[in-house]
Amino acid sequence: MPRLAARMAQMKASEIRNLLKVTEQPGTISFGGGLPAPELFPLAQLAEVRRLILEEQGQEALQYSTTEGYRPLRDQIAARHNRHGARKITADEIIITSGSQQGLDMIGKVFLDEGDVILCESPTYLGALNAFRGYCPRFVQVETDEDGMDLDELRHTLDHTDEVKLIYVNPDFQNPTGRCWSEERRRQFMWLVQQYDVVVVEDRAYAELRYEGEPRTSLQALDDTGCVVQLGTFSKILCPGFRIGWMIAEQPYMEKFQLVKQSIDLHSSSITQWEIARYLELYDLDAHIELLRSTYRRRRDAMLHAISRVMPDLVNVNKPHGGLFVWAELPERIVAKELLLRCLQKQVVFVPGDAFYPQGGRQNMIRLNFSNPTEEQIIEGIVRLAAVIRTDQ
Amino acid sequence: MPRLAARMAQMKASEIRNLLKVTEQPGTISFGGGLPAPELFPLAQLAEVRRLILEEQGQEALQYSTTEGYRPLRDQIAARHNRHGARKITADEIIITSGSQQGLDMIGKVFLDEGDVILCESPTYLGALNAFRGYCPRFVQVETDEDGMDLDELRHTLDHTDEVKLIYVNPDFQNPTGRCWSEERRRQFMWLVQQYDVVVVEDRAYAELRYEGEPRTSLQALDDTGCVVQLGTFSKILCPGFRIGWMIAEQPYMEKFQLVKQSIDLHSSSITQWEIARYLELYDLDAHIELLRSTYRRRRDAMLHAISRVMPDLVNVNKPHGGLFVWAELPERIVAKELLLRCLQKQVVFVPGDAFYPQGGRQNMIRLNFSNPTEEQIIEGIVRLAAVIRTDQ
Repeated sequence: MPRLAARMAQMKASEIRNLLKVTEQPGTISFGGGLPAPELFPLAQLAEVRRLILEEQGQEALQYSTTEGYRPLRDQIAARHNRHGARKITADEIIITSGSQQGLDMIGKVFLDEGDVILCESPTYLGALNAFRGYCPRFVQVETDEDGMDLDELRHTLDHTDEVKLIYVNPDFQNPTGRCWSEERRRQFMWLVQQYDVVVVEDRAYAELRYEGEPRTSLQALDDTGCVVQLGTFSKILCPGFRIGWMIAEQPYMEKFQLVKQSIDLHSSSITQWEIARYLELYDLDAHIELLRSTYRRRRDAMLHAISRVMPDLVNVNKPHGGLFVWAELPERIVAKELLLRCLQKQVVFVPGDAFYPQGGRQNMIRLNFSNPTEEQIIEGIVRLAAVIRTDQ
Repeated sequence: MPRLAARMAQMKASEIRNLLKVTEQPGTISFGGGLPAPELFPLAQLAEVRRLILEEQGQEALQYSTTEGYRPLRDQIAARHNRHGARKITADEIIITSGSQQGLDMIGKVFLDEGDVILCESPTYLGALNAFRGYCPRFVQVETDEDGMDLDELRHTLDHTDEVKLIYVNPDFQNPTGRCWSEERRRQFMWLVQQYDVVVVEDRAYAELRYEGEPRTSLQALDDTGCVVQLGTFSKILCPGFRIGWMIAEQPYMEKFQLVKQSIDLHSSSITQWEIARYLELYDLDAHIELLRSTYRRRRDAMLHAISRVMPDLVNVNKPHGGLFVWAELPERIVAKELLLRCLQKQVVFVPGDAFYPQGGRQNMIRLNFSNPTEEQIIEGIVRLAAVIRTDQ
């Protein structure tokens, strides 16, 4: 057997993806993956737009199309973006990707040589680690508090680390912690990083899933040097099965992303791009997002309430103002990975937190998803989890 | 601006993709891209399967799904494969990809370190060159005649080249030449390469588009060492806009491909996989392919006939027994790239052949697609092309 590429030594199976297989077993309550609530998918509306597309534009929508993506869809994404963005963009700064996961891979391909350093929050999104690992970088975690990255540590790290190429952040309802950076920290962060020669990757997958408070300014809106590459996706606000996301970047980066996209899959599904564009034209995505918000808000509250009722002494949690996850701290003596094995037998699953620390991290953290299970399942699942933790004592 | 990854120096825009933009102009007759005939897409049947999926399985079909792909679709691909394959496979040896272009990128990621050597036919498929260039390999062309790779030269190259990792071949109606390897050459090729430590990438995108003669044995069917990775796609036999293909590989490679697929986009579009599986269950893909065959056979014949009528002295062509392309040789003094610029003004386009030679190649070859234009367009386009060539003299 021929030698595999050296990079393959870095590639590890995602625990989340492996969990998905386990949770296919009936009866298991999953707080594992970041899955949206499938009962809220707008099936009738999506059926209608598909019917219209096949009737009116079927031949072009099933044909090969352009690498950067369907222009009317990119126009609509730009228009949505410009409602809030301080810095207006056009479709020329947008490329359609197969989910934002593909955007991460494309960023790795354009920027990363072996040994380049990526700075990230601590903890950070596991899927980004997986995408970037294919390019053999070094990860350096920067301490992060409730308001965002610690800027003193960030400055120190930037000053004392060679080959820092990227800073990957998820300022809105971060996966896994649910944290949302403060306005002040965002402004100070951008002021600081613009003094260095780095690219900021701003992952906005959860930004529109806010359950209280006002939207915060995106890093991209605070950028006047073109150093921010922003990732967005329809996975959390419409449906993930489409695998359609987007990336916003200025020239000269956009030209490079187009070259890479062409080499990795030519373009994302044409018909799905046509469908989403028509959906945005005919229906009210904001109203749909409002439905998601009210549902997920109730589910978050049900989870926090259940935790405070059945294991107030065992778990330490914050109240996330948005996103899909509660990030919980167990007593020091509990190792989340071992707890998971016992929980599997009791048919409740979560993601152990250590996978979110690229250089290893705390063993007693867990990530709990509240968007996919119903309120009843959330309560039952928390009761099961509490029972396993108590047996453990 | 931070330094881009070193690999970006290798990445060039595909002339075919750039042409797609030009050919969007009304009135231009395109022999450029390898586009199927959109008027043959089974729109009504695809509308029906989409309706059924959204009615009966909408929630799961729009949700995240497993990295390797939808099991019923993989079962159906295995069943179709096993009708012809000497070596039977199961769904476990199949991973769904976003078109076979993504399969090429995944192969690069799993196998290629910088400087590794890829042996390929001369000429070879431009899209494969683009995908592999992202991994900074060296390409070595092996002389290829009408029956396939020249095995004396292949043996010599294998014996005298360090770091040969992959052999990329397209034995069935190759892009761009339309060549189909003989049975004997296939057997001798496999007998030879199994003596070396290399992976054979067998790209079968066009294998089912045969217009005369009997199907040939695939390399994978002749492999008893697991060294062949085979690529297939629905792009040419159903529609490319879906971006759904597949890769067939044995363990331990399959496990690595799954890791890579997870890191690059998690999985391909769920709902599209559900739809194709239902289409294969309810309808007769073979009957659809028969329709494609009869249509494309007529178009090929129209092109060859037009060429022989309007420029018999100017162009030297073979008669491809399948696939989407005629590969034509112009008089030595004509440089195909320059000819294309003049043809653009006369509203007819093709792909200059030199892009298909990784180390540079003959300047007077052109690739002409006959699947996308109608017979009338083919005749008109050849007349326009002949007029430009004649003005050139």
